[in-house]
Amino acid sequence: MPEDTRAARGMRDLLPEDVRRRDYVIGIVKDVYGLYGFEPLETPALENIGTLMGKYGEEGNRLIFKVLRRGEHEASGEADLALRYDLTVPLARVVAEHRGRLPRFFKRYQIQPVWRADRPARGRYREFYQCDVDTIGSRSLVVEAELCAAVTDVLRRLGFSSFVMRLNHRGLLGGILESAGIAGPLHDQALIALDKLDKIGREGVERELHARGVPAEAAGRLLGGFTSRQAAGGRAGNQDTLAWARAAVGQNEAGRAAADDLAEIVRLCAATEAGRHVVVDPSLARGLSYYTGAIMEIAVDDLPGSLGGGGRYDGLVGMFLGEDIPACGFSLGLERILVVMTERGMFPPGAQAAAADVMATLFEGEPIDDVLRLAAALRAAGTRVDVYPEADRLGKQLKYAAARGVRLVLIAGADERAKEEVTIRDMETGEQTSVPRATVVERVAASLLRPRLPGVKQS
Amino acid sequence: MPEDTRAARGMRDLLPEDVRRRDYVIGIVKDVYGLYGFEPLETPALENIGTLMGKYGEEGNRLIFKVLRRGEHEASGEADLALRYDLTVPLARVVAEHRGRLPRFFKRYQIQPVWRADRPARGRYREFYQCDVDTIGSRSLVVEAELCAAVTDVLRRLGFSSFVMRLNHRGLLGGILESAGIAGPLHDQALIALDKLDKIGREGVERELHARGVPAEAAGRLLGGFTSRQAAGGRAGNQDTLAWARAAVGQNEAGRAAADDLAEIVRLCAATEAGRHVVVDPSLARGLSYYTGAIMEIAVDDLPGSLGGGGRYDGLVGMFLGEDIPACGFSLGLERILVVMTERGMFPPGAQAAAADVMATLFEGEPIDDVLRLAAALRAAGTRVDVYPEADRLGKQLKYAAARGVRLVLIAGADERAKEEVTIRDMETGEQTSVPRATVVERVAASLLRPRLPGVKQS
Repeated sequence: MPEDTRAARGMRDLLPEDVRRRDYVIGIVKDVYGLYGFEPLETPALENIGTLMGKYGEEGNRLIFKVLRRGEHEASGEADLALRYDLTVPLARVVAEHRGRLPRFFKRYQIQPVWRADRPARGRYREFYQCDVDTIGSRSLVVEAELCAAVTDVLRRLGFSSFVMRLNHRGLLGGILESAGIAGPLHDQALIALDKLDKIGREGVERELHARGVPAEAAGRLLGGFTSRQAAGGRAGNQDTLAWARAAVGQNEAGRAAADDLAEIVRLCAATEAGRHVVVDPSLARGLSYYTGAIMEIAVDDLPGSLGGGGRYDGLVGMFLGEDIPACGFSLGLERILVVMTERGMFPPGAQAAAADVMATLFEGEPIDDVLRLAAALRAAGTRVDVYPEADRLGKQLKYAAARGVRLVLIAGADERAKEEVTIRDMETGEQTSVPRATVVERVAASLLRPRLPGVKQS
Repeated sequence: MPEDTRAARGMRDLLPEDVRRRDYVIGIVKDVYGLYGFEPLETPALENIGTLMGKYGEEGNRLIFKVLRRGEHEASGEADLALRYDLTVPLARVVAEHRGRLPRFFKRYQIQPVWRADRPARGRYREFYQCDVDTIGSRSLVVEAELCAAVTDVLRRLGFSSFVMRLNHRGLLGGILESAGIAGPLHDQALIALDKLDKIGREGVERELHARGVPAEAAGRLLGGFTSRQAAGGRAGNQDTLAWARAAVGQNEAGRAAADDLAEIVRLCAATEAGRHVVVDPSLARGLSYYTGAIMEIAVDDLPGSLGGGGRYDGLVGMFLGEDIPACGFSLGLERILVVMTERGMFPPGAQAAAADVMATLFEGEPIDDVLRLAAALRAAGTRVDVYPEADRLGKQLKYAAARGVRLVLIAGADERAKEEVTIRDMETGEQTSVPRATVVERVAASLLRPRLPGVKQS
């Protein structure tokens, strides 16, 4: 029986066109984050098991891939290492370990795979990339505004135009819950329910609030407020929404401060492209309980779920140091973005280009070194050249070039050599032109400048 | 007691300057391999354990990191997955699994980390990148010549100029061994010894040949041949060396065919930059027994060991298909290259640039949105801008900018604002110029065009 040659369960081989698409998106993310002064960080795939265990709750502990001890200890069945589960705990570890070497404001992005032993499903893999950007070390709202601007620039450069950067604040949510009469210890439970307002509607949330122990009267007050606001227009201007929010938190001090923060973030965002996308949305809750300030989430029209989210979490990065360290970050859903961009045909031709621009043919008895010399000259000019490695019939070589999406094929058979010429065949139009050997490099460069014809197979 | 925040044993956190250097090298490798029509492949970090076990010998089996089964099976202490140990077995698996989707000549490069539970040592890590390039599917010597040319281009673009691409052939070695009277079954043993000729000299190799069971008379004939050739000048021309080799293999047919192949590879290499670096070296053995044809290895003056090597291995990639599939490839020693380039100061300023080109200051009472607007305009023009996130004393902000290697600092305090100006401070010269606010973007771009002063701290 032949061996199983599939990738492990829930994991994927990324074939060339997959890698090219991924590299295109990652390239834009890196460029944009670089423009904002964020720096790249990479951490090892394996961490000491104690670094990860207990950091993600009981569910997380179960989903961590654990690595068996080695050598004489292998038989013990014990694990001493584990695979990276996210990029936040490694960041916290790096902040603790390299503190003296890092700048006071550590602005880093990190784009690496993580591993989770989740049940695989459509779009859910056991190895997937996370794409995080965080600023460590400042409580200034400039941090939030810069993150919103950077993420906006990334999405716009990827071709997303009609997205909304939903913005809210944990303090505002707390104030609204307090004012509705929901006690502090029930806030986390209430937020989990409230997070589903878009999905399951008012009655659904009311049922869930009840199930999570929130008194009916308080739940009614809370939802009455939200639905009256929604009725007034989900796309009310940010100033109207902030006025509503100020009324909703009443005298709650943390809530009022949060509303002020949101107003300032909105004002700062107006100085950049983010201003066109930021929408204050008091119903945005985001499930994770570690957020301590502003929270953000990207919503795209006609797309369920989100392309990413983030917020301020001042209590987490200092976990290894035993102190609060200000931190605010954003995580882009890279795998989701790739799926959406592929489905919607958002990749420019260059991002899914063929393996080469030009293919050079090879014939029996032809001086191969001459073909290699030509390829070298083209490559030195920046043209991507594939050399067909074996002498073969022209028809077969042309078929191969067509299947690979190559744009030009160079033919230098006996006839051409006798005249010191090379024939350039345009694979899109079928046109063939014979040009003097000495002019091939410039002629090829000129031909490649012309945009591709629409609808021609490209890979 | 605080938690251990070190990276796991033998693994490294790559801080921003490390990542930038790595990205610089990887960027050049990808560019050059792309020019040759090689395409990127990525495979999962985890493989089914059966895919890896037994593929690397007993030593390899011991060094593979194995992943514990999960859930109810965790207590069994059994492993069902393992971390990628190299990039060749995954390539072989991909070739078998995706055969129908891959082109007839599959030219791929793959740059990903691998994991080995080796004893850590200086320069030896348990997680390290491999950087492989291979052509699958052709026995043509064009493949070898293209690989030599591509690797040559990579090294030259990285700044290596005086390296030698040592070239030999397993068939030639076999012929020489046969002619010296060493029987086939002893060839692998003899090659392991011969591989050390550079390091331990003739007498050392003679002792080792004896220890490995090679008769003294045959060993003497073998080494006599090699040392007479070395005495004749290690840098003898390739044609002289090939003549020596042809004599050394005598009537051995495989040896003569191998000499012909080497002559053809040398001839094809002469058509490209590789011609300036390829040196036929009949003493090059390369330890791995899976090579079946040409073998190559990069040697740099004054540098022990090699920066990479490769060769033809027609028997390996088909391991999952149960058939021979022609394959020839090259593996660059990425980690070694990074160390050497760092030690020798071979990185251009751009590759270890500061996190940003420009830092914008922030003062108490200053309209922050105005600073963000300026930063947005600069970023739209492609300038990397860091905004100091908190209002602070100028001196402290300048010190921060200096420590981070930023070239220009923008100051827009109350005085400047009154005059609708911005002050640009050149951190290298200390010069300050006040320019109209409307001209900042172009003035900054012009200042950044000037090359950096030598010797100024850059990160």
